[in-house]
Amino acid sequence: MTTGVRRRMGVEERRQQLIGVALELFSRRSPDEVSIDEIASAAGISRPLVYHYFPGKLSLYEAALQRASDDLAGRFVVPEEGSLGSRLLQVMRRFFDFVDDHGPGFSALMRGGPAVGSSKTNALVDAVRQAAYVQMLSHMKIENPPARLELVIRSWISLVESTALIWLEGRRIPRGELETQLVHDFAALAAVSAAHDEEMSELLRRALQGEPGDGPFSDLAVRLIALASPPAS
Amino acid sequence: MTTGVRRRMGVEERRQQLIGVALELFSRRSPDEVSIDEIASAAGISRPLVYHYFPGKLSLYEAALQRASDDLAGRFVVPEEGSLGSRLLQVMRRFFDFVDDHGPGFSALMRGGPAVGSSKTNALVDAVRQAAYVQMLSHMKIENPPARLELVIRSWISLVESTALIWLEGRRIPRGELETQLVHDFAALAAVSAAHDEEMSELLRRALQGEPGDGPFSDLAVRLIALASPPAS
Repeated sequence: MTTGVRRRMGVEERRQQLIGVALELFSRRSPDEVSIDEIASAAGISRPLVYHYFPGKLSLYEAALQRASDDLAGRFVVPEEGSLGSRLLQVMRRFFDFVDDHGPGFSALMRGGPAVGSSKTNALVDAVRQAAYVQMLSHMKIENPPARLELVIRSWISLVESTALIWLEGRRIPRGELETQLVHDFAALAAVSAAHDEEMSELLRRALQGEPGDGPFSDLAVRLIALASPPAS
Repeated sequence: MTTGVRRRMGVEERRQQLIGVALELFSRRSPDEVSIDEIASAAGISRPLVYHYFPGKLSLYEAALQRASDDLAGRFVVPEEGSLGSRLLQVMRRFFDFVDDHGPGFSALMRGGPAVGSSKTNALVDAVRQAAYVQMLSHMKIENPPARLELVIRSWISLVESTALIWLEGRRIPRGELETQLVHDFAALAAVSAAHDEEMSELLRRALQGEPGDGPFSDLAVRLIALASPPAS
């Protein structure tokens, strides 16, 4: 519309710009350490003008977190083609890209610092977990999961979170290794559950039909399933 | 000192009584739903007298949480005898006893409700995780764990937490099954890590020497280790 560098932004455009600037700052350092003054300065506007768009730091934080949550939930959406193992590996790469980009903010949020833990932020975190869960079911082509499968998927998602948090502490293990390992962990947890339950064993067998023998998943999974299957009687 | 039913308690005795009463209430319902009036009534004293011992609900909650944390951390301490698998199974039973007794309070705390998430409560939760981690190392007779072993143990502890939280939602899976499964999960996660790393493979092999062939651990672990070992070259 205009070529001026300092052209006036519309209300929504300004809000979106502030959210972007805040997300960038909240991602790089713990949100507690980021001040409104800093956000104003990074956005090139005055402090009172920030308050014109957002009543306080918490509301700006929640808006930034909403954007990050939408982004993160989207990382679990990959094309439903190829083997389950290769899709999960793709998802893990996209997830670790996110964690890499938003490290300090991600840690602060998940560890529950003083600025977080509001019911709004908890709801956003839960929404991401739920989106990841729904995507997993979709990739496994399962609509009505039994309790044991729900447990395996949801507890694996929590394992993914905690692995990322521990990784962020010192990045002492190459992330690529963890990405593959988490895919294998899923296979392993599912196989352990299958070893305890016939229905899980059957479900897992079906979900893994069509896995290529050389995929990242079947590499471990095929042998784990053989292990988990009840002996032929 | 006195045989009267309503004898006067000393300050510390009264504090301990209030903590016990509060812990009981905070365990059975979400701490947000428990009022000081209720605690006073359950303790048989007046509301102002509660405030005489604790400045507010948060400080009473923190004191109750401190007691619960000490209790929970103690659940990971079992005699260092018998196989690793049988000890872990014993620990899981003691842990689920705790979860069973403190269900709603445990869920509220771990899910981060509005009344929680203070730096004090976070520190208590972290202290329990750390105590569990130290006990695991002690049972495995390992003093300077490499990063990969630390990751396996700590992420497994988080898996134990999330499994308990999911179980509490509807108790749809018998807890005994989950206790055994979590021991197997530890073996499985360690085995996956060993499949990625020679040092882990060696460590795990040593830690599992002396496991009886019919123990809850080696049942799965022996086969997983064989699987995780690099092919003889």
